[in-house]
Amino acid sequence: LAGLTAGIASVQTLWLVNGHRTGLDPSDRGVAYGDGLFETMAALDGRVRYLDYHFERLEDGCRRLAIPPPDAAAVRQEIQSHCPLRGRAVVKLIVTRGPGARGYGPPPSAQPTRILSISEWPARPAAHYTRGIRVRVCDLRLGDAPALAGLKHLSRLEQVLAAKELAEHGDAEQGLVLDTRGHVVGGTSTNVFCVRDGALATPALTRNGVRGVMRRVVIETAEKIGVGAVERDLTLDELHAADELFMTNALIGIWPVAKLGEARFAVGRVTLDLIRRLGCSDA
Amino acid sequence: LAGLTAGIASVQTLWLVNGHRTGLDPSDRGVAYGDGLFETMAALDGRVRYLDYHFERLEDGCRRLAIPPPDAAAVRQEIQSHCPLRGRAVVKLIVTRGPGARGYGPPPSAQPTRILSISEWPARPAAHYTRGIRVRVCDLRLGDAPALAGLKHLSRLEQVLAAKELAEHGDAEQGLVLDTRGHVVGGTSTNVFCVRDGALATPALTRNGVRGVMRRVVIETAEKIGVGAVERDLTLDELHAADELFMTNALIGIWPVAKLGEARFAVGRVTLDLIRRLGCSDA
Repeated sequence: LAGLTAGIASVQTLWLVNGHRTGLDPSDRGVAYGDGLFETMAALDGRVRYLDYHFERLEDGCRRLAIPPPDAAAVRQEIQSHCPLRGRAVVKLIVTRGPGARGYGPPPSAQPTRILSISEWPARPAAHYTRGIRVRVCDLRLGDAPALAGLKHLSRLEQVLAAKELAEHGDAEQGLVLDTRGHVVGGTSTNVFCVRDGALATPALTRNGVRGVMRRVVIETAEKIGVGAVERDLTLDELHAADELFMTNALIGIWPVAKLGEARFAVGRVTLDLIRRLGCSDA
Repeated sequence: LAGLTAGIASVQTLWLVNGHRTGLDPSDRGVAYGDGLFETMAALDGRVRYLDYHFERLEDGCRRLAIPPPDAAAVRQEIQSHCPLRGRAVVKLIVTRGPGARGYGPPPSAQPTRILSISEWPARPAAHYTRGIRVRVCDLRLGDAPALAGLKHLSRLEQVLAAKELAEHGDAEQGLVLDTRGHVVGGTSTNVFCVRDGALATPALTRNGVRGVMRRVVIETAEKIGVGAVERDLTLDELHAADELFMTNALIGIWPVAKLGEARFAVGRVTLDLIRRLGCSDA
């Protein structure tokens, strides 16, 4: 995010459960079953970037899971009240189906729980934006979960294992995750785009994966500037054959990929143009 | 469980977080990412049935997820101290990777959280054991998640949606869940067995599903009494062609299936023999 140099003061992590500095009910279905959704958002000087898109995705997810969505105005107000007015912060919002009795079946009238956390935005090396990152192809294969495809839900144990694999090898900034069919899903905490002959392609995420807010912003921006962007199945071979590769999420913005496994990529024209237009640089 | 008539007194639900009647840290990775495991156990007169098997599965899961396992002796002591000495109760143990910073990657030295709950054992109609249950074939298709196959982990949102579908139709006691390849995974909160020509078969659960403790007990018992029991891929057609069908979990024990979709099944000899031997009847 352009000009997002280190915040004035470091951010003390804050946790609010339904607006209160309190613990979570241990019967909450968030912990019992991963039964909920979350959003991770970038804030600068008290304003959350793409807040409307985050709310849209959250509300769409709530509809799909039949969780009553939180009152958007109240959550906006809560963020406003607690987000540092100067500098950068990460705003994370979790919405669970709330407390429940034992058993997978949701209670007939759920009382959702809202967990808001505001924490330090970790600094990223400028070179990740200018020279690109290293990406490891993870051994872990992600399953299909068509009922959950695209959602940023709380049942994320596979992503935890992929991130663990990445950390154990310690030779890359992101892992690339394929599914059991050999299709590309995305990075361990990012979406992936490839550029071929000047046009973008990104996995369709109809069977798994998270439809990232930054992914949406990139697709919309590409359309506006006349660069094609298609959502479809992609193989690892297609990524290797790409002219440019980059990865996105709401916090980092856009990271060019310099290395995928042993293959090297130049930071390309389309990627740099998007980084410039979207102001996605810590540098 | 034989002779498990209603408990002397109703059980007031108890929640202990790391041994204390307190709330859960909202930064716990259990709620953030479904990053943990659980066991649901049947207790009678202060003793948990198949406790060793539950601990074995939990410890195996902890190994696979690289979560330090809880001290078994301490947990046994905690259960002993709080389980009602008379009557029946449900003992549920959740182990999460504990609190963590934002991000999928596990902290290098996790401090796991242990949540113990002791609650009322819901009474089940005797007819479920004697006449069998109705099973609905769920529309929801379960994905593959080979990295998590067999584990009773906390990322259970697909099971929540399957249970929701079952409850909305209200025409069956269990849902049968197939995966995206059309293979049988199990019931919404049970494992499934079919009997053909006197031998048992149950899904192998190498790509998804939970390896239930009662499933293990049934397989071991079948072997002891000279009934074959194979773990393999099963299709819905094979279930329809079975002589007998039944479903299992640690609380209900064994429920014969009387109806699968529109197909009717008799409560068979092998099923009744297992129910008798394992004392799995509320009746």
